Amino acid sequence: MLEFPEKIIPQGTIEKVTDEENTMISFESDYTTGAHPAILKKLMETNLEPAPGYGSDRFTQQAIEKIRRACECPDAQVYLAAGGTQTNQLVISAMLRSYEGVVAAETGHVSAHEAGAIEYSGHKVLTVPGHMGKMDAGELKAFLEGFYADGNHEHMVFPGMVYISFPTEYGSLYSRKELEELHGICADYGIPLYIDGARLSYGLTSSQTDVTMADIAGLSDVFYIGGTKVGALCGEAIVFTKGNMPEHFLTMAKQRGALLAKGRLLGIQFDVLFTDDLYLENGRHANRQKDKMVAVLKRAGLPFYYESPTNQQFVILENERLKEIEKEVAVSFWEAYDEHHTVVRLAASWSTTEEDLEILEQILTKK
Amino acid sequence: MLEFPEKIIPQGTIEKVTDEENTMISFESDYTTGAHPAILKKLMETNLEPAPGYGSDRFTQQAIEKIRRACECPDAQVYLAAGGTQTNQLVISAMLRSYEGVVAAETGHVSAHEAGAIEYSGHKVLTVPGHMGKMDAGELKAFLEGFYADGNHEHMVFPGMVYISFPTEYGSLYSRKELEELHGICADYGIPLYIDGARLSYGLTSSQTDVTMADIAGLSDVFYIGGTKVGALCGEAIVFTKGNMPEHFLTMAKQRGALLAKGRLLGIQFDVLFTDDLYLENGRHANRQKDKMVAVLKRAGLPFYYESPTNQQFVILENERLKEIEKEVAVSFWEAYDEHHTVVRLAASWSTTEEDLEILEQILTKK
Amino acid sequence: MLEFPEKIIPQGTIEKVTDEENTMISFESDYTTGAHPAILKKLMETNLEPAPGYGSDRFTQQAIEKIRRACECPDAQVYLAAGGTQTNQLVISAMLRSYEGVVAAETGHVSAHEAGAIEYSGHKVLTVPGHMGKMDAGELKAFLEGFYADGNHEHMVFPGMVYISFPTEYGSLYSRKELEELHGICADYGIPLYIDGARLSYGLTSSQTDVTMADIAGLSDVFYIGGTKVGALCGEAIVFTKGNMPEHFLTMAKQRGALLAKGRLLGIQFDVLFTDDLYLENGRHANRQKDKMVAVLKRAGLPFYYESPTNQQFVILENERLKEIEKEVAVSFWEAYDEHHTVVRLAASWSTTEEDLEILEQILTKK
Amino acid sequence: MLEFPEKIIPQGTIEKVTDEENTMISFESDYTTGAHPAILKKLMETNLEPAPGYGSDRFTQQAIEKIRRACECPDAQVYLAAGGTQTNQLVISAMLRSYEGVVAAETGHVSAHEAGAIEYSGHKVLTVPGHMGKMDAGELKAFLEGFYADGNHEHMVFPGMVYISFPTEYGSLYSRKELEELHGICADYGIPLYIDGARLSYGLTSSQTDVTMADIAGLSDVFYIGGTKVGALCGEAIVFTKGNMPEHFLTMAKQRGALLAKGRLLGIQFDVLFTDDLYLENGRHANRQKDKMVAVLKRAGLPFYYESPTNQQFVILENERLKEIEKEVAVSFWEAYDEHHTVVRLAASWSTTEEDLEILEQILTKK
Repeated sequence: MLEFPEKIIPQGTIEKVTDEENTMISFESDYTTGAHPAILKKLMETNLEPAPGYGSDRFTQQAIEKIRRACECPDAQVYLAAGGTQTNQLVISAMLRSYEGVVAAETGHVSAHEAGAIEYSGHKVLTVPGHMGKMDAGELKAFLEGFYADGNHEHMVFPGMVYISFPTEYGSLYSRKELEELHGICADYGIPLYIDGARLSYGLTSSQTDVTMADIAGLSDVFYIGGTKVGALCGEAIVFTKGNMPEHFLTMAKQRGALLAKGRLLGIQFDVLFTDDLYLENGRHANRQKDKMVAVLKRAGLPFYYESPTNQQFVILENERLKEIEKEVAVSFWEAYDEHHTVVRLAASWSTTEEDLEILEQILTKK
Repeated sequence: MLEFPEKIIPQGTIEKVTDEENTMISFESDYTTGAHPAILKKLMETNLEPAPGYGSDRFTQQAIEKIRRACECPDAQVYLAAGGTQTNQLVISAMLRSYEGVVAAETGHVSAHEAGAIEYSGHKVLTVPGHMGKMDAGELKAFLEGFYADGNHEHMVFPGMVYISFPTEYGSLYSRKELEELHGICADYGIPLYIDGARLSYGLTSSQTDVTMADIAGLSDVFYIGGTKVGALCGEAIVFTKGNMPEHFLTMAKQRGALLAKGRLLGIQFDVLFTDDLYLENGRHANRQKDKMVAVLKRAGLPFYYESPTNQQFVILENERLKEIEKEVAVSFWEAYDEHHTVVRLAASWSTTEEDLEILEQILTKK
Repeated sequence: MLEFPEKIIPQGTIEKVTDEENTMISFESDYTTGAHPAILKKLMETNLEPAPGYGSDRFTQQAIEKIRRACECPDAQVYLAAGGTQTNQLVISAMLRSYEGVVAAETGHVSAHEAGAIEYSGHKVLTVPGHMGKMDAGELKAFLEGFYADGNHEHMVFPGMVYISFPTEYGSLYSRKELEELHGICADYGIPLYIDGARLSYGLTSSQTDVTMADIAGLSDVFYIGGTKVGALCGEAIVFTKGNMPEHFLTMAKQRGALLAKGRLLGIQFDVLFTDDLYLENGRHANRQKDKMVAVLKRAGLPFYYESPTNQQFVILENERLKEIEKEVAVSFWEAYDEHHTVVRLAASWSTTEEDLEILEQILTKK
Repeated sequence: MLEFPEKIIPQGTIEKVTDEENTMISFESDYTTGAHPAILKKLMETNLEPAPGYGSDRFTQQAIEKIRRACECPDAQVYLAAGGTQTNQLVISAMLRSYEGVVAAETGHVSAHEAGAIEYSGHKVLTVPGHMGKMDAGELKAFLEGFYADGNHEHMVFPGMVYISFPTEYGSLYSRKELEELHGICADYGIPLYIDGARLSYGLTSSQTDVTMADIAGLSDVFYIGGTKVGALCGEAIVFTKGNMPEHFLTMAKQRGALLAKGRLLGIQFDVLFTDDLYLENGRHANRQKDKMVAVLKRAGLPFYYESPTNQQFVILENERLKEIEKEVAVSFWEAYDEHHTVVRLAASWSTTEEDLEILEQILTKK
């Protein structure tokens, strides 16, 4: 299978790692495992084929073409970056003018959990309330109206873009109507709507959505298709949907450290993800496993903090019990609920197996 | 071989890519192919093992331990980043104070070919002459002396770090004595010496070097071990050698978009590269192939612009001939030599095969 | 009086300005008029004395010495800058590390009204609620505790400084006890407390304060003494109270465009303001005039939105009446109160005259 | 003369400063003294007239109108800033796109002596050789051609603006023909030509120039009229000549700390400088005094390093003699000439008197 010429393999064996394999199951996040095997397979098959650098390889070109088709947006301009924070920093700083900031929900990833990456690029994150992660169209409109009504607005940061995530950081979803409203408000103010799709697949394949990939493309000015959390080793595909990719975007990416020399690594992964519908198939699998996980959690009698329509679920655990559970399954601390309880996140993913779910149920229903 | 559970593979076949495989050989650079097969093998073997994110996985910890041993620097602090420009931007901006710049040769990568990534982070690149890519210790000393002698230096950018590359962008090498001199000057001025080791392996395994990995660690304050150009899919290992990693470096990396969620991707690769001496073995292979490549180039009668001691070689070609040759082998434009001639770079790498060299000779000696 | 040698005055007359002098009174702000006449007098007296540039002149040195005495902080390190936003940007960006942000009330000037100057320097403004402009010590403590309790805080902006204003943007004041609490919390977390004293004099001379200039110095790590709003043409004096001025602060100021060539302009003004207690005397005058202004507003029956202890007052006006009033006196729009009413700010200042107050009363009580 | 109401002057006397008046003459620079007396006179006359803030006062509007007339550019867009480095940082960062840098001579102020202010704003200063401060049109053209000829230019900083100074930092001047050439090259490449006129008056009134204020406006895209070095307390007038002021420039100025609350300070000064030709008259005076100063230096037998056509002159002094001379007259260290000699700058200015020159001659010809 490994068709690499023997002569340049220095030795046959990989040193035995001294620490042991982790055998504990994990519902900690959707990025705990490696890549979908189809990706690894393609990486191996193409491994020794020479390709030019920086995204000019044929795999990247192929991936872009397939993404255009999947978005039903034949003229989309696509750029592949390595990670989510990098992508948000690049897109936002490249599109905003110096005096503009980006409007986000208070709980938006760019606002709360990117270590100030947007501010590092010189721009303020302007916040509106978050409702289980979602921005309310009426509140956005009021914010924008209020800004321009303020006589001092020339001394303030101009709202230059709106950022939402689909699904949100809480796993919640906008309906098509809600996206239309948000997009309409942005259009009225002449500012782009940017959709962070770190977990896009999990949203588009939810049983509770009426939104399609084409809707995302049509109702945004720029969005990204998250690979890292949907079965890639790394990688996010930025899609400019209105011929609005900023000039010399590649140079701006380079300047921000967001241009991989071996662009093939990203190209091959997205080529595979957008072949035979794998990207959405990964989401469908995760949502099926999520349904089963919700059933497990309910059978175990755990109260829900938020039962989301996508792969992340939030339950409330007594602190003592959490400590016990964590010895056998990795979960994610979300926030303190009260002195004695914690909100915990469990995520299903493209790689969640039946066995994982069975073990989870055993752990939760023990004694 | 692919041990991924059947049930979550959505389909058995990868869509046939419509464009054809590239069968033309390439000496364009040392990052045209994928990864050393031992890396792909390990990626597959560990693929479904859950691991926590952001570099806290066991693979990364293992890699760090092995790097410490290879550097003979048991207390080294190591951080794995994805690419070279990202690494340079991160290290330099994290270590400099606001009023400081980094001193580099005019031809240094940070000065010339990173799209202003250092300036984007707010810092000036202060330049001294480059001599086939190398900085002269005397000229560095004169620069630093001159700075402090200038009565106006409080109105100027303070030299806060010295950047060199090993090998340089031209493939040239500093001797141990030269590194000692540079490091001594930096110590005298209380500023760190940073060594960009994008191609470190190719330098350390050159037949013309007296420098070891331990020397690099001992004679620098921070350096990085390049993975991308030495057989990784991506990845550079930043090594702080004097207990001098800036506090909260991970947060600064996150802030600059330089923290991968799946740190395992980097951890696994460096774990493999530092197992059984693979990192240096890759360099030895490349230098062996380089020797053969030089012989081919000489037999073909091509005049050398610079015959370097490492994997990159620079020859002068008539523009007409270059056009012909490029139809059959990818090489890299370096710079115009004169109106009718071009300096061309050819690079051997960890993946250069005997067959590549044979085809190259056929192409160059045709007719 | 003008002792400038005749021979280099090119002509005797200033061209008559064609537009007319503004004769309408103004309570719009405390920076509508020029400088205290003692400042202009000194500027004239010293006009032709040569002085070295960039703050190394004797006036600046003199001013610094006098400020140290006024603060009862003999080792204070003082830097004179030109304006408030510039000062905030300089102090905050020079003191924070890359991964840190500044904590401010939502209504803090740095948060709301500086066009993103802090973010432009790469740092986030982290907000806590404002209570008529004031930060609550308990809420600050909870914010800091919450930050470090969050397991993800390495992915978030670290709180690296606390910013408050005295008086606040609403004219409210912290008591000495409140300052002690805030300063104590900052000390517990090892982060500096920075007090924006754009209107410091108006706070220190309020009849409702128990805080002195020495308290401000003692209970902060850095603060600034506002000149622009207290009778200078421009200028703010930054005071580092704990030997904590960042190294090469002058170079950082230069780098941010905050170093005037003719430092004498700032030195002379602060020399005068800190001679014979003029700085506080200006505040006392303003507060006396404020008391009279409040009486006028009350006699006119205007409801107060907030009756502050300092020179700024906030009343609610019907929109129709506001339009009428604005024809005769300049006031400042603060915010919409409801559909039919507006919150209006009136400010007394060092230059408010009895005549101004009489005219104001006439205008407000007309008909 | 001081018409300020007695009642708010806290005391009649200014405290006697304890340190003594500096009575030593100075040729150190053209910013050692205060302001032209006509400016101080106008500041006093208008002192208590209320004016709105941030440049919306009538003085600023008047100044702008007069500057437009002086430039013969009726549609010029003018913004008044406080200092030179601030102005350069603001103009350059506001006009460049993220991926662009500014091209300057190596000795250009933005390149060498602004503490990295341009880099702090995220942009590289790209350098071409300086010839006594001047940029050569042929070398600029070659630089730009070379950039676009480089196959890797997408990985490099794009030249987005050309910066020159008139006069240069060495006092040298471009002829009208040279400006036409530079402007033509910029036009060919679609990038603006920016002229730093910190000492504009001294250039336009040189006996050796054929360039007028209208030429500067016509042959640049943006320039600034230096006030600080030509008789203002502070202030530089930025002039956009082609309707090309970036949108929301005031907000960008605020964001960079470059917006004074009391815009009147700048407005009044430029109103006066552009009344009755005072701005150029100041230059004429300085150049007349410069001629006399050159004669003094020649009679004293001092060898010239560079005899410039404007107010700055550069002579070579033995180090021992320099030490003696500096006890009686302030001059400016420029650079070391050799081990035993120093290049010294002497500057005449708008305020240089006959007496200054007489004393200088006495000092230089002593014994």
